[in-house]
Amino acid sequence: MTEPTQHGPIDWLDKVSDRMASQFRFLIEADRLKMVIRGSRIADGSRRENTAEHSWHLGLFAMVLSEWAVGPIDLFRVVQMLVLHDLVEIECGDTPLFDEAGSTTQATREAEAADALYGLLPLDQSHAFRSLWEEFEAATTPDARFAKAVDRLQPILLNHLVGGGTWLDYNVDVERERSLTCRIAEGAPALWGAAEAVIADAAARGWLKPAISMNPH
Amino acid sequence: MTEPTQHGPIDWLDKVSDRMASQFRFLIEADRLKMVIRGSRIADGSRRENTAEHSWHLGLFAMVLSEWAVGPIDLFRVVQMLVLHDLVEIECGDTPLFDEAGSTTQATREAEAADALYGLLPLDQSHAFRSLWEEFEAATTPDARFAKAVDRLQPILLNHLVGGGTWLDYNVDVERERSLTCRIAEGAPALWGAAEAVIADAAARGWLKPAISMNPH
Repeated sequence: MTEPTQHGPIDWLDKVSDRMASQFRFLIEADRLKMVIRGSRIADGSRRENTAEHSWHLGLFAMVLSEWAVGPIDLFRVVQMLVLHDLVEIECGDTPLFDEAGSTTQATREAEAADALYGLLPLDQSHAFRSLWEEFEAATTPDARFAKAVDRLQPILLNHLVGGGTWLDYNVDVERERSLTCRIAEGAPALWGAAEAVIADAAARGWLKPAISMNPH
Repeated sequence: MTEPTQHGPIDWLDKVSDRMASQFRFLIEADRLKMVIRGSRIADGSRRENTAEHSWHLGLFAMVLSEWAVGPIDLFRVVQMLVLHDLVEIECGDTPLFDEAGSTTQATREAEAADALYGLLPLDQSHAFRSLWEEFEAATTPDARFAKAVDRLQPILLNHLVGGGTWLDYNVDVERERSLTCRIAEGAPALWGAAEAVIADAAARGWLKPAISMNPH
């Protein structure tokens, strides 16, 4: 959880319509996503990624990789979902995929965060944006499944680029990694093929541990 | 200009199709945008903004503020333009609005950067994405004008939130600021109204100098 943003007075909002003022309050609050730090490093390994730049990268991933979606998608909806998908982390912080304790309470904490955050917007936009975010979380529509696929794929690439990343931080084995990311196949089978190649290479290099259940005989 | 990204071997790209490998090379190269530092601070003033998170913020600005566009726009095209609009900074770095020396060579440097960067993509995507970026730069279509409006508006808000920001860094006066940002009105007159309110307030607080040409008599 980040601290509430400390910034100067915004009484100039009195000079614009109530509707526009609500929109600016939301956009100013959203700036805090730049201070939410993820487990993943950026590609040169120099620092951890923040959630705002992660969300930008995913938008670009979706634009570039949309042809690999399992079926027809509405790419505009997908990109909007990805711009919005982690905004609740402003209140909740990032919950790494490998953090089991955090994951049990994640849904409740994020729903409360969504109330607070999307509640800043005019009612029509509040409903529309929150509904897109809930669709992403449920991951039952083709658009949401593709968005989820991209969100699972990007950290695999970053972990490999930096020589292990969160796989080493959390002592992850290859089967656990596969089980946590195989839903990529639901949104984009060809991208899951790429992810499997990256995971196999990471295992061969020792960045992912051998599967615990693996029986050599 | 950022250094070429140092990262681990990407020979796993041999396991995917040439087309997909080109797409991943582009997406990995794009990661460098997270290391391009802008003049603007993030809203709490704690550090400078990087161009990747700036691009995310602008996508959100466009989604929230689209109703204020001067005429009908295709919001999907606008959001894509904003995701792409600063990618050339990977090669060129950010050129602040107030940097006159940098601005004279900016177009040439950015065109060369676009050749290198978009050239990584498969030809169809290379053309499509570069064409969207060129449309943004030319700013003659309604979509590009709205995207430019948002790109000019966000730094004004951030400068005000942090108590002056690049206005103080560059000793900017109120008329210069207005002349550099008034094109917001071409894309979204109502947002220019908001920008004028912010600028007037900043001038009243001494964060923007009085206009040099102003005659008190």
